[in-house]
Amino acid sequence: MSNYTLFTPGPIDVPEEVLQETAQPLIYHREAQFGKLLAGVSNHIKAIIDGEDKIFFLTSSGTGSMEAACSNTLSTGDKPIVAVCGKFGERWLEICTTYGIEPIVIKNEFGRCIEPEQIESALKKLDRPTVIFTTLTETSTGALNDIQSFGTISKKYDSFLVVDAIAGVGADPCPQKNWHVDMLIGASQKALMAPPGISFISASSRIVKKIAESNLPRYYFNLQLYEKFLAKHQTPFTPAITILYGLKKGLEMILQTGVENHFEHHRVVAEYVRQRVAQMGLNLLSCSPSRALTVVKMPDHIDSTSVLQEVKEKHNVLFANGQANLRGKIIRIGHMGNYDVSKMGKALDALENVMKQRR
Amino acid sequence: MSNYTLFTPGPIDVPEEVLQETAQPLIYHREAQFGKLLAGVSNHIKAIIDGEDKIFFLTSSGTGSMEAACSNTLSTGDKPIVAVCGKFGERWLEICTTYGIEPIVIKNEFGRCIEPEQIESALKKLDRPTVIFTTLTETSTGALNDIQSFGTISKKYDSFLVVDAIAGVGADPCPQKNWHVDMLIGASQKALMAPPGISFISASSRIVKKIAESNLPRYYFNLQLYEKFLAKHQTPFTPAITILYGLKKGLEMILQTGVENHFEHHRVVAEYVRQRVAQMGLNLLSCSPSRALTVVKMPDHIDSTSVLQEVKEKHNVLFANGQANLRGKIIRIGHMGNYDVSKMGKALDALENVMKQRR
Repeated sequence: MSNYTLFTPGPIDVPEEVLQETAQPLIYHREAQFGKLLAGVSNHIKAIIDGEDKIFFLTSSGTGSMEAACSNTLSTGDKPIVAVCGKFGERWLEICTTYGIEPIVIKNEFGRCIEPEQIESALKKLDRPTVIFTTLTETSTGALNDIQSFGTISKKYDSFLVVDAIAGVGADPCPQKNWHVDMLIGASQKALMAPPGISFISASSRIVKKIAESNLPRYYFNLQLYEKFLAKHQTPFTPAITILYGLKKGLEMILQTGVENHFEHHRVVAEYVRQRVAQMGLNLLSCSPSRALTVVKMPDHIDSTSVLQEVKEKHNVLFANGQANLRGKIIRIGHMGNYDVSKMGKALDALENVMKQRR
Repeated sequence: MSNYTLFTPGPIDVPEEVLQETAQPLIYHREAQFGKLLAGVSNHIKAIIDGEDKIFFLTSSGTGSMEAACSNTLSTGDKPIVAVCGKFGERWLEICTTYGIEPIVIKNEFGRCIEPEQIESALKKLDRPTVIFTTLTETSTGALNDIQSFGTISKKYDSFLVVDAIAGVGADPCPQKNWHVDMLIGASQKALMAPPGISFISASSRIVKKIAESNLPRYYFNLQLYEKFLAKHQTPFTPAITILYGLKKGLEMILQTGVENHFEHHRVVAEYVRQRVAQMGLNLLSCSPSRALTVVKMPDHIDSTSVLQEVKEKHNVLFANGQANLRGKIIRIGHMGNYDVSKMGKALDALENVMKQRR
């Protein structure tokens, strides 16, 4: 079906073993066998992220879990903090606005990270604890935020830290308990190596208590329902069962490698990609790059759209373009999950080949 | 992974060809190839349901699409009509209540259908057109509603008919345009023969116009975003791509059989199942049964939970139990999608065998 290999920052080139797992016959989501599956996936994720109390699984893209995180922790009149340094940070803001919430916005130019001091300064302005929404790995720019420092500050002010870790989880370390993250949001289609269809929220017991107090409307994303069904290792609505099969397999592959080895593998691959693009004379968009993807700026006279087109057509390699006003100006190279130096090498040879002709 | 065959009313025993299709390598959802996939799925569904203007694809269970239908067509203070005759009809009511909407409720005892006159009488009480939410195939009871008559009445009162056809679409005929259905909601995991993960809303142009006027909060389910991306045959958020592969295959299998033949096949299989359960002395819960599933009442002295357990353990056949207060009192036999007389025959032999010992 596909005539190119994905080097996009999600969905990824899913391992064949995972794809085959998703083709297993269906089980019924109200039976013990499903409970075993969900508990297995949950335990595996906890091992990888140093997970907190409860993991809620939603059949949705990561954005669905982001919306659930907002609509289950906020109430009318709340003043959360939204820390934005890219398109996916802006999504937190859009979701809050949808629900009539007017957050305190920390916004840095795309590519720059949020400074921990910016979070602390916003918290100081408030006279009570609040919820802080931010991003681990900003997929639109390749920037990695310093969640560990954010967590320390959040704890100091008795606040709640909610992190979109969708693109980073499994590639960029973010130990939830150790770093005081109250909600960590992930999805199946990135470094956890499965096809898209499942997202999840790993929640601390203190933020789970907040859900009952929140008054924003939600039904499909009502985490109180998910909590009730979680007691039986079930979901309130029919889940994407075969995607969970795949996710379990992807997680098992990570655990077989070893969690630390898996993160180290991503560091090595990311380092290699950065050396290669530096050799091509390309600069990174972010000064604090993630291990999950590498985002390079195009020289002013080159349109990335045509480069990407040519790389795809001549070499069957698909990188991603920039989004919104970064379209045509950057190339986003995904290396989360199922990629190694040799595979990245071939893809970067293709990019080098096409770039050479544009000098 | 599974030690039984599913005869549950969703998920179903998905055909092997469909499962294999879902194991194909991933494509990128911002590329033309994905657009072709989504357009193909959309055209196939339109052919099967006599589809209306636009089909929005959501990565969610059917409930997600039900919530989207409410939150995109209603505004604060609206008085929709909700016609309920089972658990899934009640879901419409729960969703409305979540958003502070107080509908006019038509509620019949579980198993009885909604009478068209009940809809008309509710419409008469209102001084303006409204939205009517109801169910084609009530999976909790096996009842089939007379959507054709509801459509005629809705049109007469210039109202909007929104139908949860999740369990029925592809099994129970419901030609959308011909029957004046403004939104028809379906999902991948029932008679359309794919695994769960995708739901959809087929919407008429007149109800699409209503979306812009509606003021309820929604982000992941904001159909205005879906409409914008639909112009490029894309979705606003990362979709369950491999489930769409499977859905396309399932739909192709239906089109190869022929749409009319597929509906007729379901009629014949349903008829066979009813003869068999009648021979066992079992009565149907509903006097207007669907072609998608058959729901039988247990004699007073028999607990269906133990029957189902034994059928599963001894014969590797899994039927579904009743939900909520019908648990233990009924058996729900799914025959939507990938079932024929021979396959149903073996499953019913298993039920007969277990029932005989309880007389």
